[in-house]
Amino acid sequence: MDLKNINISKSLIPENYLRLAIEAQKFKETEFRELIEKRKLPKNGWSDSHIEELVRQLSALDSNNLPKKVGVGEREARIACSLVARRHYNFGHGVGRSGDLLEAQPKAAGSTLMVNLTNYLLLDLIHEMGVRSCRCCFLAPLATAGLIPVIIEPQLNDNGSMSTNLEAFAQKVTDIGTENILCLCTTTSCFAPRQCDDIVEVSKLAAQHSLPHLVNNAYGLHSAYLTHQLEQAQRLGRLDLFVQSTDKNLLVPVGGAIIAGFDEQLVRSVAKAYPGRASSTQTLDVFMTLLSLGRMGYMRLVKERKENFEYLLARLHGFAKIHSEQVIESKCNPISLALSLKQFRNAGFEEITKFGSMLYTRGVSGARVVAVGDDRKIEGYEFLNWGTHHSRTEYAYLTIAAGLGITKVEIDNFFVKLHECWEAFLKRLKK
Amino acid sequence: MDLKNINISKSLIPENYLRLAIEAQKFKETEFRELIEKRKLPKNGWSDSHIEELVRQLSALDSNNLPKKVGVGEREARIACSLVARRHYNFGHGVGRSGDLLEAQPKAAGSTLMVNLTNYLLLDLIHEMGVRSCRCCFLAPLATAGLIPVIIEPQLNDNGSMSTNLEAFAQKVTDIGTENILCLCTTTSCFAPRQCDDIVEVSKLAAQHSLPHLVNNAYGLHSAYLTHQLEQAQRLGRLDLFVQSTDKNLLVPVGGAIIAGFDEQLVRSVAKAYPGRASSTQTLDVFMTLLSLGRMGYMRLVKERKENFEYLLARLHGFAKIHSEQVIESKCNPISLALSLKQFRNAGFEEITKFGSMLYTRGVSGARVVAVGDDRKIEGYEFLNWGTHHSRTEYAYLTIAAGLGITKVEIDNFFVKLHECWEAFLKRLKK
Amino acid sequence: MDLKNINISKSLIPENYLRLAIEAQKFKETEFRELIEKRKLPKNGWSDSHIEELVRQLSALDSNNLPKKVGVGEREARIACSLVARRHYNFGHGVGRSGDLLEAQPKAAGSTLMVNLTNYLLLDLIHEMGVRSCRCCFLAPLATAGLIPVIIEPQLNDNGSMSTNLEAFAQKVTDIGTENILCLCTTTSCFAPRQCDDIVEVSKLAAQHSLPHLVNNAYGLHSAYLTHQLEQAQRLGRLDLFVQSTDKNLLVPVGGAIIAGFDEQLVRSVAKAYPGRASSTQTLDVFMTLLSLGRMGYMRLVKERKENFEYLLARLHGFAKIHSEQVIESKCNPISLALSLKQFRNAGFEEITKFGSMLYTRGVSGARVVAVGDDRKIEGYEFLNWGTHHSRTEYAYLTIAAGLGITKVEIDNFFVKLHECWEAFLKRLKK
Amino acid sequence: MDLKNINISKSLIPENYLRLAIEAQKFKETEFRELIEKRKLPKNGWSDSHIEELVRQLSALDSNNLPKKVGVGEREARIACSLVARRHYNFGHGVGRSGDLLEAQPKAAGSTLMVNLTNYLLLDLIHEMGVRSCRCCFLAPLATAGLIPVIIEPQLNDNGSMSTNLEAFAQKVTDIGTENILCLCTTTSCFAPRQCDDIVEVSKLAAQHSLPHLVNNAYGLHSAYLTHQLEQAQRLGRLDLFVQSTDKNLLVPVGGAIIAGFDEQLVRSVAKAYPGRASSTQTLDVFMTLLSLGRMGYMRLVKERKENFEYLLARLHGFAKIHSEQVIESKCNPISLALSLKQFRNAGFEEITKFGSMLYTRGVSGARVVAVGDDRKIEGYEFLNWGTHHSRTEYAYLTIAAGLGITKVEIDNFFVKLHECWEAFLKRLKK
Repeated sequence: MDLKNINISKSLIPENYLRLAIEAQKFKETEFRELIEKRKLPKNGWSDSHIEELVRQLSALDSNNLPKKVGVGEREARIACSLVARRHYNFGHGVGRSGDLLEAQPKAAGSTLMVNLTNYLLLDLIHEMGVRSCRCCFLAPLATAGLIPVIIEPQLNDNGSMSTNLEAFAQKVTDIGTENILCLCTTTSCFAPRQCDDIVEVSKLAAQHSLPHLVNNAYGLHSAYLTHQLEQAQRLGRLDLFVQSTDKNLLVPVGGAIIAGFDEQLVRSVAKAYPGRASSTQTLDVFMTLLSLGRMGYMRLVKERKENFEYLLARLHGFAKIHSEQVIESKCNPISLALSLKQFRNAGFEEITKFGSMLYTRGVSGARVVAVGDDRKIEGYEFLNWGTHHSRTEYAYLTIAAGLGITKVEIDNFFVKLHECWEAFLKRLKK
Repeated sequence: MDLKNINISKSLIPENYLRLAIEAQKFKETEFRELIEKRKLPKNGWSDSHIEELVRQLSALDSNNLPKKVGVGEREARIACSLVARRHYNFGHGVGRSGDLLEAQPKAAGSTLMVNLTNYLLLDLIHEMGVRSCRCCFLAPLATAGLIPVIIEPQLNDNGSMSTNLEAFAQKVTDIGTENILCLCTTTSCFAPRQCDDIVEVSKLAAQHSLPHLVNNAYGLHSAYLTHQLEQAQRLGRLDLFVQSTDKNLLVPVGGAIIAGFDEQLVRSVAKAYPGRASSTQTLDVFMTLLSLGRMGYMRLVKERKENFEYLLARLHGFAKIHSEQVIESKCNPISLALSLKQFRNAGFEEITKFGSMLYTRGVSGARVVAVGDDRKIEGYEFLNWGTHHSRTEYAYLTIAAGLGITKVEIDNFFVKLHECWEAFLKRLKK
Repeated sequence: MDLKNINISKSLIPENYLRLAIEAQKFKETEFRELIEKRKLPKNGWSDSHIEELVRQLSALDSNNLPKKVGVGEREARIACSLVARRHYNFGHGVGRSGDLLEAQPKAAGSTLMVNLTNYLLLDLIHEMGVRSCRCCFLAPLATAGLIPVIIEPQLNDNGSMSTNLEAFAQKVTDIGTENILCLCTTTSCFAPRQCDDIVEVSKLAAQHSLPHLVNNAYGLHSAYLTHQLEQAQRLGRLDLFVQSTDKNLLVPVGGAIIAGFDEQLVRSVAKAYPGRASSTQTLDVFMTLLSLGRMGYMRLVKERKENFEYLLARLHGFAKIHSEQVIESKCNPISLALSLKQFRNAGFEEITKFGSMLYTRGVSGARVVAVGDDRKIEGYEFLNWGTHHSRTEYAYLTIAAGLGITKVEIDNFFVKLHECWEAFLKRLKK
Repeated sequence: MDLKNINISKSLIPENYLRLAIEAQKFKETEFRELIEKRKLPKNGWSDSHIEELVRQLSALDSNNLPKKVGVGEREARIACSLVARRHYNFGHGVGRSGDLLEAQPKAAGSTLMVNLTNYLLLDLIHEMGVRSCRCCFLAPLATAGLIPVIIEPQLNDNGSMSTNLEAFAQKVTDIGTENILCLCTTTSCFAPRQCDDIVEVSKLAAQHSLPHLVNNAYGLHSAYLTHQLEQAQRLGRLDLFVQSTDKNLLVPVGGAIIAGFDEQLVRSVAKAYPGRASSTQTLDVFMTLLSLGRMGYMRLVKERKENFEYLLARLHGFAKIHSEQVIESKCNPISLALSLKQFRNAGFEEITKFGSMLYTRGVSGARVVAVGDDRKIEGYEFLNWGTHHSRTEYAYLTIAAGLGITKVEIDNFFVKLHECWEAFLKRLKK
């Protein structure tokens, strides 16, 4: 509704008030126009009402929401339950066309616009977080599928931390032969005491052998340390694609992945391999969240998380000292931390996992007790001390993480409960 | 967001799809413009999403929702609880200024526009329902207040129905003296067996004595029969104002009244007498409801109600015949019906009201058992057989109504339950 | 849904997870039970989802929401527009019965419970804010109506502030005669430079003459200074009722008043005088807001406002010094402030009000420019310098207020804009 | 909130009203309990408020919504944007654990319950629709992925319809060798003039060669004709899995598939192959929709669609007769229809597709103009007359479908616009 184009009777509103109203509309229109024209994250987060207005206006452009539509196809985005229609803002057509997630959807002009805009905003965010060379990215409404993996065990360092075994990596490439390798896969973010893989060196290896290199950057987009590794890897070697979850990096419900790379054609070819049309719900979540946070809001979250990680680290060192345990140093892991549980050494595997249950029933989620002694065979591979990241892990440990959105209050409460459980568990062991 | 004014990259949306999107916007804009320019009820009801978009755009014009506002007054429509803000679409300023409900509100351009637009739509509806001479009306967020009443008992007809006692009316005017009378008050819609007052004749009496005449048209706006009486009364005599509830006539939550009349100055002077600024919530409900129904939707409700009344009347006659009771004829009451309860005559007042409780605990609401024998004194007046409309009522009766929105299924279920209770109550009486 | 009472197949959820789920339910149930049993403000605010769950459960108890209902009355709380039903959480019956706001509503068990609970929570809040002797209060969905006022001009102090002219008050009581006076009316919160009335002394006067005393405590409930006056006035003299707006004291949309007093019967008799059933929407807003804030949340708002008032006062003194104006001292007004506009003295009344418009078009709302020279006659009374609170006001001033919810950022922005306008207006005057 | 367990003061609600309120709660609790205990579609659809209450109660059981939670993991279902949290009812954890969609999710007891319940309700629906032998099914939040296809062109019948070329099928199996075939794939629902594959005969072939048989039942679940084929195929031959979209069969937004089969272990093994945790949003949509429709509501939709298909067929025959075209008979296709466009034969491929554009710009979506002459090579396969289903198609045709949810009004409007476009296009061709 553009008040400037409507002939409004003075009996509805006095002229001077109308002028103020038109002024109010102008600001909003400018905000919408700039977003669409610049295709960049807004500096400051938008209000809920602005976000919803844009989303509703986009949804109104999809054919299922046209006022005089006649639908005689087999897929017309009819929605039976009004609650479902409402929670999806009447978006029903999904994204892409069969077999290409990025192709425009003829019945869904608004969805198409939203999808493409979201991908531009994500690219802007990736740049802002430090991967300046990234050229293209898109949001896929699922996690990526696997192929036949060849696993290279990390190197177990003296202090208990684990890092990339580069020699083993290089040896394996030679052993198998580059012609039999689809790509090298590395991981940035993972549970301590495992560290971020040495993706720079693996990149060099990839370049040397002309092998594609895919990085699982699961929850690493919000860490400037990890995005710096990505940028360096791409500059000094070969890194083709890096993939990250939306839930952990953008605080949306589980279900989407951002697939990004340094060559537009390559990224687009991944989009083309998608099996069919996809849900647009993950896109909508990411779109609304990015507008809600804005650049400043996201950077504030990033900064707070880093500070909370330092705080968690300091408190964990304090706890370790008092209880004669140690924080297993994993200097290249800026998110997850591990505390040794050497004192529980005599308890068996089953018994030690109960320490985890004690924490969980007190409301602590995300803390994992990793015990030694669980040997498993999965798809032909044998894993000794499964879950510990290494076959030769000697003692149990507890991992915790300072993920995006964690608060200082949560950390304080965690140590209250950790203390309680620690005392209770020691008593229990003594019996 | 006006797509025509935005420079949209082809990487966001292909040009041919964009053209379709712009076309889609145009329809909506036309709908908004026509409403505001014509100030008439739309012919067909709007979709929920169109209604909400208009409401949100109006609310965005109020000063509390301006993006860069600075509020240093004592009333700034700040809303603490986000749920409250959400359910009011961020409207917070109420309507009117102290002491005049219809004055524009400087801090609330959007609210002002909505209030005035709603009053125009209501006037259009009143015309459509048959009161063509009505010149002005407004929505007040409360019921009207009383003064010192002089009560004129209706005339009890042979068949048990009650109608206006015109002679008593005229006599009372003479007895009291016109100089001591503020106005004559009549009622159109009320519980059967009372009929609609003979407002045409009372209007003539009012004209003859130059006395103002106020009609309580509580739930009569949706009955063409009653609105015809209003129009006739105004043409043939004097009728100043008629007042009706919004809940029963427009199916909104309880809390508003439409005050209407034939002289704009008179109606406006009532608006000026309102004690302070008022809530805009009732206006918002009425505004959304009128847009949702449209002229056609409201007329369909009116028609269905009339048909359901005929059906209820026929079924009630059937029930009366089988159980040897009678439908007390009140031919001038097109909404409410009464069924005699002569067979329960020997039960006392307390006992008979239990028949009503039986119905209520079976989910029947709105059916009232009116027993004789409750004599009360209220503000100096003595009422024999209080609740029956008449001091000489001889037997109990049951009143039911076919109000706007009633369904045939409800009527069918009612008779199932009435039958059950009737049998059970007779058994109980026999014990 | 009480998981403990449902026989849940293990194929739906493993037993150990079910135990955790049952634990989660227990906390919520306790919260609900304590609220209803204790009828006190919760210490900490509730989450949105807990508030909405309670509200929906209450609404489900009203007869219009019963699953198998049969409605054959003329008022059945049918709601035509689903958007309206949704925003009212399906509450439709309003509160009270005709003529008594506090009477239970038979068709609306849930509404009745909510209304009574809200009134208890408000009483608890009034106690918490300092009026410990208050015995009863209720929320009315409108402002209070007026009677024939006798106006007693305040005393104009040397520094430009205005306070209660107690002598004139006492003299007027003697002149008119107590038998001709319904009650004494005083005001606590009002625009500076007027101060809070000396309600303690007026209370003594009221006690001495056995006259009822009503205090308009418009936006004074959130000021401990003003509530202390109320408590003292009641202890040392006679104070019957005090009335306050909900919008300014509880940050809800405009439209409700809290009527409170020290004698339960008196307060209830006011509720009985209400003309008809009323909207429940104001109650719902207050109920949700109180639960959302909790005691701690409200007290934090109160504290922040007081600090922001001090900050506003300090900045205003700074501004006054630089521009050779003065803050008109009104030490008994803890909310509103006035700045002299002596330099604009030569501009006429019309011209000076343009200074206010300049501020408003820059987004400043709530700042009022009060100029001398507007003489009016209202309902027989002559007001010289209308709007200035006094007939002998000598120069224009600007009033601003630090109301509940104001932020430091708003104050800072205000001074930026005040400075801009000041410079621009002085230039304009020089032309 | 269980009113029976709360000690409620009579000052909050009179005892007799409280009894009614408790009665009202009981009905709702029964509905919830029966759903969870019986795990069957409710007979009648639930009201929106009952659906939302259940959904919210389930969501409250997930760990991210626990009131006193401490989250120190890397995935804690924190949601940044309150609009996103709201539209997902605070569900954030997704479904399944890495690599198994059906495994219970420890942090999400409520989600787990919802997922399993939804799968039971879907199984009940599949039974109700006629596939009585189906043993297990689950909802996957994406479409299924493809493998290397071997395409068997359908047989082109004399009347222009196309059906399964069984001989070619059998020949191909022999040619390739069963050891080189993963499974046989057939399709039930597709664009006319292609018919439903003869899945019964292909099933016999599959049984004979011990080959798995997968049916793409895209939008066939709502057709009793097609589900009957499925049931027969399974009884008389071998049919392992059948897969269908949720959007077209259940009227939810695009994005989910129901994977169903006759052997529980087989279906579960598909769930285990899912690459990672998945979004729960498609489950939530389906869950709410099934409760909203109930068995009766769904069956009403099915019946209406069938009637509308008959109506569309009759009208299309009428149109064909008048314009000397023919409805291409495809008696085994109960959803989609084709109209020959022989008169446009002289127009080229590009030109004919414009007829489709004309319809689309008039608001007709879903009607496809299929022209001959588009030869393509996709992944090594050559397709002559791509899009027409057959290399030897001789003339263009128009396909339309009567999908679930279509209305008679849409069909009527379609023929108005078809007529308009037909006349306009003929004129254009003559130029």
